[in-house]
Parts: sequence; structure tokens; C-alpha cells
Amino acid sequence: MTPEAQRRVDVVRVRGGAREAGRDQAATEEPLEIRLHGQSFAVIMRTPGADRELAAGFLLAEGVIRGADDLGTIAYCADRGSGRAWTPTGGEGADADARAENVVNVTLANGSAAAIDRLMADRRQVTASSSCGVCGRRTIASLAAHAAPIGASWTVAASAITSLPARLRERQEVFDGTGGLHAAGLFARGGTLVDVAEDVGRHNAVDKIVGRRLMRDELPLADDLLFVSGRTSFEIVQKAIYAGVPIVAAVSAPSTLAIELAEAFGVTLVGFVRGHAFNIYAHPERVATV
Amino acid sequence: MTPEAQRRVDVVRVRGGAREAGRDQAATEEPLEIRLHGQSFAVIMRTPGADRELAAGFLLAEGVIRGADDLGTIAYCADRGSGRAWTPTGGEGADADARAENVVNVTLANGSAAAIDRLMADRRQVTASSSCGVCGRRTIASLAAHAAPIGASWTVAASAITSLPARLRERQEVFDGTGGLHAAGLFARGGTLVDVAEDVGRHNAVDKIVGRRLMRDELPLADDLLFVSGRTSFEIVQKAIYAGVPIVAAVSAPSTLAIELAEAFGVTLVGFVRGHAFNIYAHPERVATV
Repeated sequence: MTPEAQRRVDVVRVRGGAREAGRDQAATEEPLEIRLHGQSFAVIMRTPGADRELAAGFLLAEGVIRGADDLGTIAYCADRGSGRAWTPTGGEGADADARAENVVNVTLANGSAAAIDRLMADRRQVTASSSCGVCGRRTIASLAAHAAPIGASWTVAASAITSLPARLRERQEVFDGTGGLHAAGLFARGGTLVDVAEDVGRHNAVDKIVGRRLMRDELPLADDLLFVSGRTSFEIVQKAIYAGVPIVAAVSAPSTLAIELAEAFGVTLVGFVRGHAFNIYAHPERVATV
Repeated sequence: MTPEAQRRVDVVRVRGGAREAGRDQAATEEPLEIRLHGQSFAVIMRTPGADRELAAGFLLAEGVIRGADDLGTIAYCADRGSGRAWTPTGGEGADADARAENVVNVTLANGSAAAIDRLMADRRQVTASSSCGVCGRRTIASLAAHAAPIGASWTVAASAITSLPARLRERQEVFDGTGGLHAAGLFARGGTLVDVAEDVGRHNAVDKIVGRRLMRDELPLADDLLFVSGRTSFEIVQKAIYAGVPIVAAVSAPSTLAIELAEAFGVTLVGFVRGHAFNIYAHPERVATV
């Protein structure tokens, strides 16, 4: 694991009503752009480290390659001409600067131009420049065109946040006998559970909740709080922003990119809601402690 | 939540070396095809229930719609002409037969033909017929063209499986101070930990492990066991099949489609590995109990 896999972040720790500023470790989430013969093939949110391996495994799972014989080279963008590209017969490790670009280019061993064009035609168009480098900061900036920062000024009591898991579980216990479902709950600012959705996918559970409000023409959800049973990623916070939810809380940890996005768009991001404690990773001003 | 959200499945329970056949509940995973004006826009793996809401929320998150004003109708495929389509002013609930098709069609309120064509051009091509209906069984069948069933005949001792979490955690404790990373471990049939990968995404962790072996030309991994820290979905089992791994074990629950896929392709699927117990959901013949 590379040193880039986790980062220190600012946090406000709330324990039984008292708050204390501190530092915490968060798992790094950054986009990785995978190119095929120089053309953008996919952008994946991932934790930096073993990027070339991730690209190889991803292309196998996508059916682009069938095995090692199909792989030509795998190189970070800046490796071009440096002899650092990975090849089936060797190749140097990349340095930190190259890894920080978040772009790897893969060539196929027997990739004719026609075959590559056919593969690319089957892909979603990914808007990416031909330059080296893609990063979380730019990913966040590109959202600004589509979404407005959230300006809600109401506050929620710390005790209301610590009561969320039990309230969600009440409804979950009825429904989920499988141990295999993620849950998302929408709560009114008074603390009432407005809606709950369960799904094998965390993102789907949030989409179901937001979709139901959208169909009732109730967006933005400026007076609501979203609570999810798992971790918070870039995508979960992005969905909250599109829905206009000012507070997102979760049972588990947020990623670095979830925190940066919440910070940039005015979303209060709460994690590790357990017992009488939780952490606030962005915009703590909406949480009232006595 | 609809009754289709969970299903009874066969299971072999192993507790301290003794095995017992039984029944368990598994969270349903099925593909949902979302169409825009009749053209296939995306296929999402999800738990059935609130499908129209999921489609609406998904299209918001994808930037296709900005709010309720953009939504025309949302209908299951078989709802056409039945008056059951959802519209902003009402619409009936769908019946179980319509839901079982796993296809919803969305029309935009102001969707010109040109705008729809532009949206579709930006999407990955999804191979789907124009008929109603897409299901897990067909999804599994379509894999058969790309992957071979796994025929490995070696067995693993129950005690080796119950030792997996501790062995993976040993390596994780060093690396993960965040509580926010998923882990996947590759174990040799003798029980040695061969490789470990951590990532904010479960799928990425598996891709990193498989990719590393692929780059060393070591596929198929016919003598290895894959262990993941979370749940097992269709996609996780699919990745194992492409890599040729005969045994997949997980700390948490498998979905119905993960079980069906493992069953069809000869993968031994183990879940809920906790303490001295675990469950086997497919191909229990590779687990030896005394």
C-alpha cells in the first residue's frame, strides 16, 4: 500500500454533547483514468496504489483482455519514453509524481487500430483532456456547473444525530432478514423518519429515496437529513448535493473525496455515528452541541 | 419494500466442523434496465422495489434531469397503453408481473428527439433487446460465451476458512487506520496469504489482486481462494470466474444473483465467516468437514 492511500483530515469529535477539534485518518479516494492506446476508456474512483494492477484487472473484468497474452504495456502518462512502462518482461516501478497524475495508459499486445476503435465505440464517452493528470479537485470543480452550493442555516442537535441508527434499525429489522441490504433513511429536521429504502447497492438506496421525492416535486430537500448505513463516497455526497440535502450522516467512514466535496458544496458530513458519539468532517456549524 | 426483495435459498451451515443443510434468506439482486424514450440507457444491479423511484433518482444523479419538471412518464414495459404509467399527476402502482420484467421506460417532459439522441450518444452501448424483460438468468447465460465453468476438485478444510478473517486482519491492521477501506485477500490452497489489496471500492480491491496475477501470467488462479471483507454481489463472483478462482469467501452475505452465478459456474461460495462458523451457498463439495 502506498503512503497516498490515507490522508490526515480535520475532524470535530462529538462525545455525549461535548465537541473537540482533532485530526483523523481518512481513506483516499481519487479518480483514475484508464486509457486504451491513448484514448480515455474509463474513469474509476479508487484508492491510489496498485493502479496498473487495477487497470489490468478492470480490463479483464470488462472483457477487453482475456489474459496476459493480450497485454502490451501499462504506463503512467508521464512514463512515456522513460523506460518505466510495465511490460510482460519487466519495467520499473512508477515514482510518486507519476502516480499522482492518476492516469494510466494500456496498450494491447495485438491491438489493431480497428479493434481499438470498436472497443472505444462501445464505451461511454468520457470527457477528458489529452494532457496528463486528473484529480479530485478538478472532479469537484466540474460539478460546479451542474449544482449549487447548499446554504441552509438550520442546525440539528447532537442528540438527534446519535438517535439516527436506532430509528433506522427499527424499520430495517422489519424488512431485512438477510444481513445483505444497505439502507438509507431520510429524516425531517425535527427528527422524524420520512422515508427509508433498502438495496444491495448503497447508491441505489439513496437514488430510490431521492427519486421518490423528485417524483413528488419536493426537491430540493433543504430541510432534511440523509442517513446511510455504510460509508460515504464521492458519489453519495454528489447525490445529496443534486437533491439539495444539507446534512449527510453515516454509520461508517467518509473518503477524502467525500469530505472535500462536502466542504466545497456546503454539506455537513458526519461519520462514525455510534453510541453517543460521532465525527463531523465538513461544515460542523450545522450541529448544535450544548 | 416488495416481497421480491428477499428470497429463500439453500444453505449448508458449518459450525465448529459440523455441517447441516438448511434454508436462509438472501437479498435479491436483479438487473434493472432503464430506457429513455424506448432506448436502453443503463442496466443497474439492484434489489427489486421502488424501481420507478430508482430510475428517477438515477437520472437526476446522471444529470439527465434536473427536477420534476423534466419528467414525463415512468412506466414498466408492460404498462404501455394500460394507463398504469406514472405521470406527474398520478398513475397506478405496477403489478407484480410488470415489476418482474425488470424494465422501466422513462420519457422526458421536454425531450426532443435530438436531445434524446444526444443523451444516448453519450452513453455506453447497452446490448438489450427491444422486448420486455431482462433477468438474472439471462444475465448469467450471457456470461457463458466469455467464461468457462470452474472444475477444480481440491477441497479446503472448514478450519482453514474460519481462520481467514484473522489472517486478513493481521495485514489490514498495519495498513488501515481509517475504517474506510475494503480489503480482498488471495490465499493459496494450503492457507498461505498470497496477496492483499485495499480500496474504498470492494470491486477495485478484487481487480487489483486479479490484475497483479494477470500481469505475472498466473491466471487461472485454480489453486487459490479469494476472501473479501464485505458482501458478495454478482460482480464479485463474475470477477472470480474470469480469474478462474474456485472458492470465494466473504465476511458478509451474498446476494441471490451471486449465489445463482456461483452455482452455474462451479464456484464454491461461502458467506458470514465469523468465529467458528460460516455458511456455504453454492458448491459445498469443496469444503471438507470431519
